[in-house]
Formats: sequence, C-alpha cells, structure tokens
Amino acid sequence: MTSTNTQFTFEITHSSDECSGRTGLLSTRRGKIQTPVFMPVGTQGTVKTLSPDELVEAGAEIILSNTYHLYLRPGTDTLDHFGGLHKFMSWERPILTDSGGFQVFSLKTMNKISEEGVTFASHIDGSRRFLSPEEAMRIQNSIGSDIMMVFDECSPYPIDHEKAKESMERSVRWAKRCRDSHPKMSRGQALFGIIQGSMYHDLRAESLERTAEIGFEGLAIGGLSVGEPKNIMLEVLDNLVPKMPPEFPRYLMGVGTPEDLLSGVERGIDMFDCVHPTRIARHASVFTRNGRIDLSSAVHALSDLPIDSSCSCFACRKFSRGYLRHLFKAGEILALRLASMHNVRFLICMMEEIRNALKNGIFIQYKNEFLSKYNNREQ
Amino acid sequence: MTSTNTQFTFEITHSSDECSGRTGLLSTRRGKIQTPVFMPVGTQGTVKTLSPDELVEAGAEIILSNTYHLYLRPGTDTLDHFGGLHKFMSWERPILTDSGGFQVFSLKTMNKISEEGVTFASHIDGSRRFLSPEEAMRIQNSIGSDIMMVFDECSPYPIDHEKAKESMERSVRWAKRCRDSHPKMSRGQALFGIIQGSMYHDLRAESLERTAEIGFEGLAIGGLSVGEPKNIMLEVLDNLVPKMPPEFPRYLMGVGTPEDLLSGVERGIDMFDCVHPTRIARHASVFTRNGRIDLSSAVHALSDLPIDSSCSCFACRKFSRGYLRHLFKAGEILALRLASMHNVRFLICMMEEIRNALKNGIFIQYKNEFLSKYNNREQ
Repeated sequence: MTSTNTQFTFEITHSSDECSGRTGLLSTRRGKIQTPVFMPVGTQGTVKTLSPDELVEAGAEIILSNTYHLYLRPGTDTLDHFGGLHKFMSWERPILTDSGGFQVFSLKTMNKISEEGVTFASHIDGSRRFLSPEEAMRIQNSIGSDIMMVFDECSPYPIDHEKAKESMERSVRWAKRCRDSHPKMSRGQALFGIIQGSMYHDLRAESLERTAEIGFEGLAIGGLSVGEPKNIMLEVLDNLVPKMPPEFPRYLMGVGTPEDLLSGVERGIDMFDCVHPTRIARHASVFTRNGRIDLSSAVHALSDLPIDSSCSCFACRKFSRGYLRHLFKAGEILALRLASMHNVRFLICMMEEIRNALKNGIFIQYKNEFLSKYNNREQ
Repeated sequence: MTSTNTQFTFEITHSSDECSGRTGLLSTRRGKIQTPVFMPVGTQGTVKTLSPDELVEAGAEIILSNTYHLYLRPGTDTLDHFGGLHKFMSWERPILTDSGGFQVFSLKTMNKISEEGVTFASHIDGSRRFLSPEEAMRIQNSIGSDIMMVFDECSPYPIDHEKAKESMERSVRWAKRCRDSHPKMSRGQALFGIIQGSMYHDLRAESLERTAEIGFEGLAIGGLSVGEPKNIMLEVLDNLVPKMPPEFPRYLMGVGTPEDLLSGVERGIDMFDCVHPTRIARHASVFTRNGRIDLSSAVHALSDLPIDSSCSCFACRKFSRGYLRHLFKAGEILALRLASMHNVRFLICMMEEIRNALKNGIFIQYKNEFLSKYNNREQ
C-alpha cells in the first residue's frame, strides 16, 4: 500500500518501547494534526452547542462531520453554493467525514441494499434517497472534507461468520469503487479505507489485506463499539492492529471514552472520534480526573469547586459546580454549552498528555495512574 | 425627593433641544452605565443561551435578573453561600433586579393577596411561598443586585378606575415598607420606586407624587406593555414623564422593541429591559436595519449575507444567513446562541447610536431614518 498524495502525509514522530503506541503528525492541506488525536463530532455541520472559536480554544485540530446528515440537510446544492463545509460553518482547520455507511445501516431507515448501493428513507422527510460508493464520494467532494471515508457496510453485532464475510466482501468491492471514483490526490482530499469483519479475526485479516491492497491514505477500523462486549473489541484490536501497515494512520471509528482512548492508543491507534463527550454533557454528565459526575445532582448545589480543578476550559475557569447545577436544574442552554465545552477539552487535554507520556516513555504509568484515579471516584 | 446614596449617582450629560430625551451616566458600586440603556434580561441568573463574556462583548453595561425566579431557584441559601448573584454567575458589572411583583401577579400562581403580602404556589414544585415588601428586600439583598426594585402590585389591563386606585395605593404603601426595610445606602444597593395606576392619568400622577415623596434613587414606570394598545402606553408616557423629577433615572419596565426604545427615549426614558430580543431569537426571528427577518425561512437557504451587514456581533462577523437557517432547521443550539447574541447586540448598538444622536442634536432625524428603513422591510 502506497500513497502519493503529497498534500497528505503521515509521519511517525515516536514509537513507544512499552507498547504499540506511537505519536505522529498528520499533514493535510488545511493544517497539521498531532496524533494520537480525538476528533470532536459535528454531525450536522456544528459540534453540538459549540462555536468554531470554542473548538479552537479547546485545542481541536480536526473535527468530524457526517456525510449522511449533510447529504439530507442542507444538501449538496447548498454546500456547493457556499464552497464547502469549511466556509459554510466558518471552520478553517481539517474536517474528516464519515461516508454515511454507518448511519444508513444503523438509523433503521434502510430499505434495500443491492450491489449498486443502498436505497433508504430520509429520517427528516421520509423521501427516498440513494447512497452508493460513487454517491458518497460525490457528497464528500461537495463537503470538501480533508479526509474522506469509503462507503462501507457496517455489520450489526452479533452477526454470523457467513453473513459477516459477505458483508465484508461487499465493503471491499465498494472500497475499490470509492478509490476508482476518487483518484489519489484528487482535490487534495485524502481517502481512508475501512476494515470490517465483525469479531472474526480471519475476516478482519482478509478485509485488511484486500483493503490495503486497493491503496488508501489511511486505514480505519469500523464495526466496533456497536454493542459488542468490551473484551471483544480489545481482542479484535490485539489481533488486527499488529497486522496493519505501520506507515499509515490508523483510525478507530466511533470510539471515545477516556478508558477506550487509553486502550486504543496502547494498541497503536492514532485517531478516534465519538459523540460520547458532547452527548453525555447535554445530560449533565461531565468528566473529572476522579471519574464522571452528574452535575444535576443535589450534592453539587453548594459546591464552589470547578468541574475539574486541573482543567483549563472556560467552564472550569469561570464557574462553580453549584452554578452549573443551577443552570441544569433551570433548563438553561448555557449549562449544555459549558458541560460540552468541558468534556471536549477534557479529552483533547488527555490526548495531549498521552502524546507527552508516549514521548517520555511513561505511557503505561500514565495510563495506570489515570485509570486508578478515574475509577476511584473519590471526590 | 432626594438621594444621599453616594455609591449611586445619576448625572445628566446632555438634554435634547428637540424632544424630552437626554443622555446620562449612572454610577454604581460596580461600574458606570451610559443612558439611555437597554438591559438584557437574565431571568434565572443567565441571559438565555449567552455567557457573561458574550454579554460584555455585546456591550452590555448592566443586566436584569428576576427576584421571583431566583427566590424559587436556586434560593437565597444558595445565593448567600456563593456571596450573591455576581459571583454565582461570574458577572462583574451591575445587575438590576425586579422585585418579583410582576411575576407573582402575572404567572397565574397567585393565591392570596393581603396587605401583608402575597401567598402563591411555586411554578416549579407547587410549594406554598410568600412574598412581601420586606421579603422582596431580603431576597434582593441575598442576590446583591446594584439596583433593587420595590415590591409592587402590577395591575392587569384592562382594570377599572376604582380597582386601579386601590391597587396603586397598596403599591405605594408597599413601596414605603420596602424603603423602611432597606434604608438609603444600605449595602451600596440603590432602590427604585415603581409608578403604577394603569391607564389613568390622575392615578399615575398620584402614584408618582406619593412614590417620589418616599424617596428613592430612581423611579420606574410599571404596568405598561401588559397588553394595552400601543397608543395607551404612549399617552401614559406623554402625560406622566414630564411630571417626573428630571434629576432621577427613569426606567420603563418590560419594554424593549426597537420602536418602543425610540418612543421611550424621545419621551425622556433612561432605562429599558425586555425579554423580547432573546425570546424572538430562539424562534429564529432577528433584527435587521430593514426590519425583522425569520431565519428559518427558505428564502435565506442560499444567502451569503450576514444577518445584518452593519452589525459587529460575532454571528454577523462569522456566519451567513444560509448557515444560520441550516442550524435552525437542524435544531442546533448554536442557532439559538447566534441569534440571541445578534439581537442583544443590535439593541445595545442602537442605544449607542441613540446616545450619539441625542448628543449631536439629531435624534429625531435618527429616529425617522431608522424607522423608515426598519418598516420598509426591503431586503
């Protein structure tokens, strides 16, 4: 597998002696991204509740947006009119877009899968829509994302070996069609392949081999964090990642709890994304070094403490848990903003620390100390 | 009527030759306020969707908060614990609090009015609560507002002369009890009286005389913008304001559309507040120099224009109407934030222009030009 996209390079800056973890630098046409990286998710062209400036302040070097959602609304005509998503949403740094595959197969709007693509009903207005490898490339071209993903079939969990194999093979054929319709260096947009195969190591290995053979600028692991037990996900990673070519960025899709970030980095993953931090924030749940806390709880009513005293985010610099609790109880939008801002910053800060720990050869110590405090939950 | 509260002064810096309008400077223990001023409303200890930093950026020199709401939630124990509302919400500039009278009489939770006060059911949990002049002063002391309002009875519209007179007389007696329980200069908090009397000029005149006699640091006009036709409000102002002592700040409560701000300033009003700009913003309605527009309308789908090209707010500097429309259609919280930010900035900017127009002797010209464009609605 080789890449000749000179507007997109990946350099490994340090490889750990303790584990499979490594630090790196992704260079895109819109700027550099230090890895391992957590990418906040802006499903509909905005990371929920946050402004682009706040994402920059949180240290986000790249965000993720969703082909499926942007295709349905505002649509490619609108995106083309505005010159792509970056200008539309006023975000100048890199954007990665998923291909819509995951949403088409998980939002239960599926209607008919054929070798050609998927016909489904829009969750917004019920209109009949069609996504295919070529269509997903076209849409991601309109979005103008810096890293595009191939259109794949995301298997549900559990799935038997035969069905998983069929699905994986279709994903490989679709990946080839994506590559064919988006040649290397086209518009400066990188294209990542996605490895499927559910929990079956032989299928994962075959998917990896055949996907890598097509030739992409990076490889993602799809179909995990879809309901399987945690140990299944870790076993897949333990088995699969060592076989992945080290010179390409490795992206574990849809994974982003603090525990999973540590597990993934240790096994050699470079990129993560998840709606988790912003979704739980809107339900008053925020990360602290001592575990997650529920800001709506009465125990915080008279607390002068910030959410996390080691955090540098706007919410922690300016407001007490007591005030945040009041805002949540009163149903105020500022509560959702401050909690989201904190959770995003918390994970990005964690990744900064992880990169430093890797470089300093103390990642395992960092991980153990982090988890020891995080799981202790003494406030 | 005299005031000896040296931590609170009002200086008239310019009086118009063209109308009753004037510019002034309110000095409080927490900073100066240029008048005429529009005060954004932070009902529950936050101006809905906005952070304190964004209010400062919008040019807000003072905000309003609500005794009734803060009394029910978070309650005075919490406010006392945190050292008052300023520290609680991280807002260092002046705060004016209404007394709770308006809410008690308008939120239909009224239960029993006696000379002593009002017993009512909390709209949050149905618990029995009691507000009286003394209690309203105690709560506003806990809040630590820089300008407190007396606890008054806000008459509904319409009301007959006899009932309006009874109500006005009770408000006068309650005003006296407020003053008695909050002596001048106490804690550096100013106390404003409220003139009632519905649409009856004789009652308004009597209310003014008897309220002024008690001695307050400022006088407010209550009981307007409660459902009466616009001409009734203006007639009351035309008749009442010329009788008000010029040396004290005049505050028209609950009024804040662009048209009403101009009408009020022309008649000599110094202070305004209204939930209008933030409430309509959350329903996608935003001010422009050419009238209000509905950002959720399809006509804006491909618009590259900012909300208002003359506006300096973050929303107008960074985003197109097309993007804002997308955010509203997608139900994204960022839409509510940006529209609220804009509407607040629009009114504050308007007041800056009004003050300049007054000082330059061109207020009537400014008003006519503003309304001509605003009512034209050509985009």
